[in-house]
Amino acid sequence: MKRIEGGICAVPGVRAAGVRHGKYGLALIAASGTAAGMFTTNRVRAAPLAVTASNLVGGHLDGIIANSGCANAYTGPRGLEDARAMARLLADFLETDEAKIGVASTGVIGRYLDLGQIQSLFQEAAATLGSDGAASLAAERAIMTTDTRPKEIAVEHKGLRVAGIVKGAGMIEPNMATMLCFLYTDATISAERLHDCLAEAAAVSFNMLTVDGDTSTNDTVLITATGRATGREEDLREALSYVCMELARMMARDGEGASKYFEVVVSGAASEKDARLAAKAVARSSLVKTAVYGADPNWGRIICAVGYSGAEMDPDRITLGLEKKGEEGGRLAVSLVERGRIVEGVLERAQEIMKGEEIMINIDLGLGCAGARGFGCDLTHEYVNVNANYTT
Amino acid sequence: MKRIEGGICAVPGVRAAGVRHGKYGLALIAASGTAAGMFTTNRVRAAPLAVTASNLVGGHLDGIIANSGCANAYTGPRGLEDARAMARLLADFLETDEAKIGVASTGVIGRYLDLGQIQSLFQEAAATLGSDGAASLAAERAIMTTDTRPKEIAVEHKGLRVAGIVKGAGMIEPNMATMLCFLYTDATISAERLHDCLAEAAAVSFNMLTVDGDTSTNDTVLITATGRATGREEDLREALSYVCMELARMMARDGEGASKYFEVVVSGAASEKDARLAAKAVARSSLVKTAVYGADPNWGRIICAVGYSGAEMDPDRITLGLEKKGEEGGRLAVSLVERGRIVEGVLERAQEIMKGEEIMINIDLGLGCAGARGFGCDLTHEYVNVNANYTT
Repeated sequence: MKRIEGGICAVPGVRAAGVRHGKYGLALIAASGTAAGMFTTNRVRAAPLAVTASNLVGGHLDGIIANSGCANAYTGPRGLEDARAMARLLADFLETDEAKIGVASTGVIGRYLDLGQIQSLFQEAAATLGSDGAASLAAERAIMTTDTRPKEIAVEHKGLRVAGIVKGAGMIEPNMATMLCFLYTDATISAERLHDCLAEAAAVSFNMLTVDGDTSTNDTVLITATGRATGREEDLREALSYVCMELARMMARDGEGASKYFEVVVSGAASEKDARLAAKAVARSSLVKTAVYGADPNWGRIICAVGYSGAEMDPDRITLGLEKKGEEGGRLAVSLVERGRIVEGVLERAQEIMKGEEIMINIDLGLGCAGARGFGCDLTHEYVNVNANYTT
Repeated sequence: MKRIEGGICAVPGVRAAGVRHGKYGLALIAASGTAAGMFTTNRVRAAPLAVTASNLVGGHLDGIIANSGCANAYTGPRGLEDARAMARLLADFLETDEAKIGVASTGVIGRYLDLGQIQSLFQEAAATLGSDGAASLAAERAIMTTDTRPKEIAVEHKGLRVAGIVKGAGMIEPNMATMLCFLYTDATISAERLHDCLAEAAAVSFNMLTVDGDTSTNDTVLITATGRATGREEDLREALSYVCMELARMMARDGEGASKYFEVVVSGAASEKDARLAAKAVARSSLVKTAVYGADPNWGRIICAVGYSGAEMDPDRITLGLEKKGEEGGRLAVSLVERGRIVEGVLERAQEIMKGEEIMINIDLGLGCAGARGFGCDLTHEYVNVNANYTT
């Protein structure tokens, strides 16, 4: 897997643009190919998701238009009309059918779009559509809300390219797909197989990510395969899972108010479902998150979260350790519990590890051979700052 | 329902005592009667819960011993021995069988009890066993951890008395019973019927409470009926539900770092299960909790939480309002959404209400006639302070 530059524009045939004025931004992406998508499982699904899901039935997209600042969620029939109007703007410009456009929105829920503003942002963005790294970056910046930095990745893997950009920092809880993410590949593949590849990659990446436990109304992951390269589907799957996992890590690191990142690595579970339940519960626990923030080696909270996760577990079989990168690329690790037995005299070392900026929490359930990885960030004073005054 | 003074000692036949030295406290309660209990659903169940659950098979308790500072959770066979040793201390003193003693612990998980310390606290406490309000208060104070104030209630209702004390401020998420709570009544009732009454009361009170979404390893609710009064079971049920709901409210108000309290009142649900799911999801949402803290009228987060709660819902049928007590006992209310239609021009009034110290969030799902009430508190900078350095 080779990392390359250029964001989504690293994939041949992808053009992008983005503009932003204060809280309001608009991104355009032009790229034709077979397409698939995944959407929030929230029963309140924003208008653009309904429009895009319906457009994806055709299995083909020519472009994506996405705005930030207003989620166009919980906006009824008028919201649907507004989302379609957004699609028409890009369709007319690309001289295609509006049913071949993906639409996405992010921002405050329960407010109507300002179409006049969208139109003026569109004119500005359309004039700058480009196919280089700067163009990808502009699109990334345009869809940021509480994100503190743009998030992109591009890889080359056995003759295929896969790239993606993502926004997401809050209202994030693993459930199918939890943010806006636009993925591109030059692979040649049917829309149905592409959806299958996407679902597999999302299961181990976006679905294992939690910032605050809230599942958004607007989560959208779209992938377009431009069909300019040929390669094996298993290589595409591998590259896509890698790309999605890296994007999930970027989102956790940029979680609202986050100062530290942690990964929960569960092994020895009786089933994959159990492994995921345990990893998610630990990554989601407010008490684990505040302990990470305060570098408090309060490992009982980790065991406690596994206990209520719903996963099959036996307290007497758990092995628990902490780990962080040490000086000069080495690693610092500590074992806290070994098959249910508390290891004495290691709290100081544990605290040293908890002071790290990136912490691995290793949990072996000792029951089987299934595993999973959860991605999380700490819960900080700044998270409270960011969210106590979001709309005002 | 008449509120009376005296805490649990308002129930004839109940004696209590409590001592505390720094982080470590011990409470004793002596009262004989039929008894029932409920415990955490966490798969990691602390040692004292196993001992107490086993003792409750006999359906009778003569007393309860409870310590704070060490949870005696995740402590294996040694933890069980320690919990039994605690029971023996009180049993010997009361000249009864250790199988008639309830044991409870709260504090740091994964540490062994200091039995020497427990013994010395016991000697001190036993010497002060009393049957007045001060004795109840001493027991309440002895089991506090991050609680900022003792929590008690006593009522008289149609010839029966029901009273309870509770500790709990963090690691609180509705699931069967989420804290230490000791309830007393002078009613005459079998242990089996008593358990049924307790389960009913817990379902609408403790199970609808959330502070941080973490289900503790040590949650214990015990009730003892001393049989000194006779009354109708339905009156006991009514009084017990009232007592448990008030105790749940006290816990939410004293939630870790909480500056404000809110109640989520769901009506019009298709089923009681749906109503509870919706109420809990809103009470639990970090984004709703931070919005309450910051008085941000970001009501989209409330609708969003209902959307992912798992409850049957139709966005087009929801009615949403906010309410707080106004000046001179009046109330200030605002309607934000009416059967799916956004009410315009009310955000200023909504913000005024969100500034209140006690806020009601009223959600009518418009689908049926089931309802539920959830109890929550805001997520504040102080919550992060309290939990970032708990063990250190």
